[in-house]
Amino acid sequence: MTAYHAPLRDHRFVLHELLQVERYRNIPAFADAARETVDSVLEEGGRMAEEVLFPLNRSGDEEGCHFEDGVVTTPHGFKDAYRTYREAGWVGLEGNPEHGGAGLPQIVATSVGEMAGSANLSFETYAGLTMGAAHTIDTHGDDAQRETYLPKMFTGEWGGTMNLTEPHCGTDLGLLRTRAEPREDGTYRITGTKIFISAGEHDLTENIIHLVLARISGAPTGTRGISLFIVPKFLTGPDGGPGERNAVTCGSIEQKMGIKASATCVMNYDGATAYLLGEENRGLRAMFTMMNRARLGVGVQGLALGEIAYQNAAAYAKERLQGRALSGSTSPGSAADPIIVHPDVRRMLMTMRAFTEGGRALALWTAFALDMSRHDPDERARRDAEDLVSLITPVVKAYLTDMGFETANLGLQVHGGAGYIRETGVEQFVRDARITQIYEGTNGVQALDLVGRKIPAHYGRALRQVFHPIDQFIADAAEDEDLRDMAGLLGKSFGRLQLATAWIGEQGLKDPEQAGGGSRDYLRLFALVVVGYLWARMAQTARDALGRGTDERAFYEAKLATANFFLTRMLPDTSSLLSKIMSGKDAMMALEAEQF
Amino acid sequence: MTAYHAPLRDHRFVLHELLQVERYRNIPAFADAARETVDSVLEEGGRMAEEVLFPLNRSGDEEGCHFEDGVVTTPHGFKDAYRTYREAGWVGLEGNPEHGGAGLPQIVATSVGEMAGSANLSFETYAGLTMGAAHTIDTHGDDAQRETYLPKMFTGEWGGTMNLTEPHCGTDLGLLRTRAEPREDGTYRITGTKIFISAGEHDLTENIIHLVLARISGAPTGTRGISLFIVPKFLTGPDGGPGERNAVTCGSIEQKMGIKASATCVMNYDGATAYLLGEENRGLRAMFTMMNRARLGVGVQGLALGEIAYQNAAAYAKERLQGRALSGSTSPGSAADPIIVHPDVRRMLMTMRAFTEGGRALALWTAFALDMSRHDPDERARRDAEDLVSLITPVVKAYLTDMGFETANLGLQVHGGAGYIRETGVEQFVRDARITQIYEGTNGVQALDLVGRKIPAHYGRALRQVFHPIDQFIADAAEDEDLRDMAGLLGKSFGRLQLATAWIGEQGLKDPEQAGGGSRDYLRLFALVVVGYLWARMAQTARDALGRGTDERAFYEAKLATANFFLTRMLPDTSSLLSKIMSGKDAMMALEAEQF
Repeated sequence: MTAYHAPLRDHRFVLHELLQVERYRNIPAFADAARETVDSVLEEGGRMAEEVLFPLNRSGDEEGCHFEDGVVTTPHGFKDAYRTYREAGWVGLEGNPEHGGAGLPQIVATSVGEMAGSANLSFETYAGLTMGAAHTIDTHGDDAQRETYLPKMFTGEWGGTMNLTEPHCGTDLGLLRTRAEPREDGTYRITGTKIFISAGEHDLTENIIHLVLARISGAPTGTRGISLFIVPKFLTGPDGGPGERNAVTCGSIEQKMGIKASATCVMNYDGATAYLLGEENRGLRAMFTMMNRARLGVGVQGLALGEIAYQNAAAYAKERLQGRALSGSTSPGSAADPIIVHPDVRRMLMTMRAFTEGGRALALWTAFALDMSRHDPDERARRDAEDLVSLITPVVKAYLTDMGFETANLGLQVHGGAGYIRETGVEQFVRDARITQIYEGTNGVQALDLVGRKIPAHYGRALRQVFHPIDQFIADAAEDEDLRDMAGLLGKSFGRLQLATAWIGEQGLKDPEQAGGGSRDYLRLFALVVVGYLWARMAQTARDALGRGTDERAFYEAKLATANFFLTRMLPDTSSLLSKIMSGKDAMMALEAEQF
Repeated sequence: MTAYHAPLRDHRFVLHELLQVERYRNIPAFADAARETVDSVLEEGGRMAEEVLFPLNRSGDEEGCHFEDGVVTTPHGFKDAYRTYREAGWVGLEGNPEHGGAGLPQIVATSVGEMAGSANLSFETYAGLTMGAAHTIDTHGDDAQRETYLPKMFTGEWGGTMNLTEPHCGTDLGLLRTRAEPREDGTYRITGTKIFISAGEHDLTENIIHLVLARISGAPTGTRGISLFIVPKFLTGPDGGPGERNAVTCGSIEQKMGIKASATCVMNYDGATAYLLGEENRGLRAMFTMMNRARLGVGVQGLALGEIAYQNAAAYAKERLQGRALSGSTSPGSAADPIIVHPDVRRMLMTMRAFTEGGRALALWTAFALDMSRHDPDERARRDAEDLVSLITPVVKAYLTDMGFETANLGLQVHGGAGYIRETGVEQFVRDARITQIYEGTNGVQALDLVGRKIPAHYGRALRQVFHPIDQFIADAAEDEDLRDMAGLLGKSFGRLQLATAWIGEQGLKDPEQAGGGSRDYLRLFALVVVGYLWARMAQTARDALGRGTDERAFYEAKLATANFFLTRMLPDTSSLLSKIMSGKDAMMALEAEQF
């Protein structure tokens, strides 16, 4: 009953008009990213999402994955769809071209990932995790490891996973117990149990390459004694294909609230053969260097569900007849007006729209910085981009997933009672979106990462990458008649962000619980200001396009109106957030644990 | 894996200490409501919820209802539990004692209803709907109808339903098509299809009394041609028990996001025998007079899910070891500290707690006013109470359900990954809570009811019932050293509410879309101020108890701390809400429908 249309026009707006990625063709990674190439990749990716992934979204949710005797079977149709998907080359889109990846920029892969996630989040997790594991091997592996695994992973013939969590340790990886015993041949034997392993076992690929955190016998306790290992489901045979079965098995799969077609596995390692990836005892570090990409990916999943929720809510609101417009009927000929005439329905739709379009700008701006942090020929520019990515990533992850969930919920609300019925299909978006606020580090952990690690790093150096362009934009826009009002609104909120930043910095130095207590509200305040800045820039871009003359007036006018909605109706949350942060931790921490 | 403990101490605090219901023993309806009686009803009700209803909550969700050939079977155990529940007299707790009800005040029934809803929302819907229908018959029926139906409904032998919605009409009942043809004997033949009928068919009772909205042949179109009918599943036999089967059947049941053990039915009326309830063409009016009670009931359902979510999140946070306190370990002897030491976990728990305790005060304050509106011997006092109830009901419904859902979600978040697993049990609270924002009028409809109907009625007369006591409290508290700070915070937000009220009133007169556009934010602002006022009064009550000396210091100190949290961390949302409301409708209504 739901539908999905790849929002190609909006991706093109962000890529070409707002960020103007074509200006960067001088950078080798972008050399092949001509506008026409990018557009045709987006178009093909959108079609794959609409025609191959989306039709399996509801049926996958209804059927879920099956588990029997260690074997996991994905829902009907997934195997064929995966073959089509991987054969068309979508898995290794941004993979290193030296090892068989297509070598496209992260920003393009991020656009395609959003569309895949909208169409079928469960499906997208399989390929997404493969690429997460592949990037980790690419970054920390030796040449032999790269040659053994990457080509098969970039084609999607082999899958990949990340094995961090154990029953007693999720966020706090220092508690990890899985053991690795060195063998004489340089390999290791891994023993332990991992839980919540997405795509840990399934029938889509002929092999699965697990990356596993474990402690080498005799290693220090805590986080400084953790190493990262490659543990293939099948050891590589003499021909490079899957050989002997390794001692890793799936013990069971979880029944979950959502993403039911994504297999969440308990993985048992029973003396499995393992290969050290990177240095001994530096496993957590290796994981963390890959986190930015993974967290951006999860943020985009939140955005993706917001987008499909918006599309379906807007369609329903234009079609469902109920009641009359407060300002007089818009369709006096029919029995009632479409519910889109009601201001509160508009409020919901505009909130959804302002989030998805603004969130898309945020995600792609971040992905672009990720590209620059790797590929800009200038070292200082790489460092600046790296600073920006590292600072903004927890904001992207938490804001896009919190708002993605909220947007999916607003979409359900627009449907009224019909939204609560499974057959309608929109309640699945809510259930699927809910996990994104939790995995890859809960949103509370993201907030703590922002205030406790990312901002203080290098004496706050990274903040300049965000504050400086915003400051500059506000100063310029204040002189621009069309943008002056927006600049004023943005400036007021930016002032609040600066106050909050100073407060958190000062108080946090004296008492880290003050920073921790305000962390969630601070992250949201930060996100609103950054997205407000991007919206103001999008308004400028749209205004310029209208000024030049265009046959897409409705598109650009809608951008201006939506920017205005964000700045007047969503950005004002910064005022309450500032009060809450500055009220301090006292009320929050007053009770003893036993009083709860 | 979840647990539920009836929060008896907190109910006693609100009933006896905050509202002091015992002072009203002079009013006949309260004559039997001595403190010990009330306490023992709460205790028994709590035990029933814990021991009979709660054990079937998860299994009911997993199994759902079954439908075959028009027959609906509730999940395993429901039938026995219902028999136990009704035989103990819980169904007709607040029923009219002249017709076999127990005649307890609404406020006591509301407390018990909260506990039943926490323990098993699906189960609670069956009895809740029976009482909704019974009250409607009590208010609008003639003596014969009351005698025929009420005694059987108050004992729970017979169930009841409300049939409003049709496929093409939910909120907009003027579009209703179900027809009623008068017969010569004074009865009617009803034909039509109703959807989303909770408890429309099931195996818990020997008969089901449907109240059905339909249009008598020749009646005016729109809402002025709708009448209300009694349509029993079995016509009453000569002995007063169920006789001949009526022509009403269940066509199917819905697969839903949650409340899966509550049967949501498509009901087909095929010339069913029906009896007019109340006057011809005044059916909607009859329904609306019962709405306050029903909407309070749904608000309490939201609160109920917030409460059980809070209890389980607090228990998990005290037990789950992960990471170290920012201020230094609290349990240096174990591998990690319980997560309740982390400020962001505290933020979530305190938000949940401040909502549930404040929401309970709001719900019971409203239920008490409902009692007074019916039973106060003084006519003017009845009118004042009726004004208060009618004004505050949409606020209670929307705020308690929006926040109940948010609280259930926070509870899931505290559990991290485990919260997403069905077996843990807390994701069910989220799915179950979601319906409360929709049924009995979506929360958008509540907001429009508040600004469009309730506030303007009698030139704003009802507002006095809220504004006057708040104003008075702030003036008094300003002179009280302990309460001065809280009064200051409350006063600031109350000022914003007054500004917003004036703005909505003025703008709404000129352009109803201005009022509609701000309605949701205005309702939330209103709720925050009222709950802030109740929190400040609870702080005063707790402070007085501590001053008198008590052996429950921890309880009262927790009340003070939680009041402080609400006023400093939750009430400040009023500032953003005011800005949003006063930014007006322009940004919201700027786009044409086809631009979405």
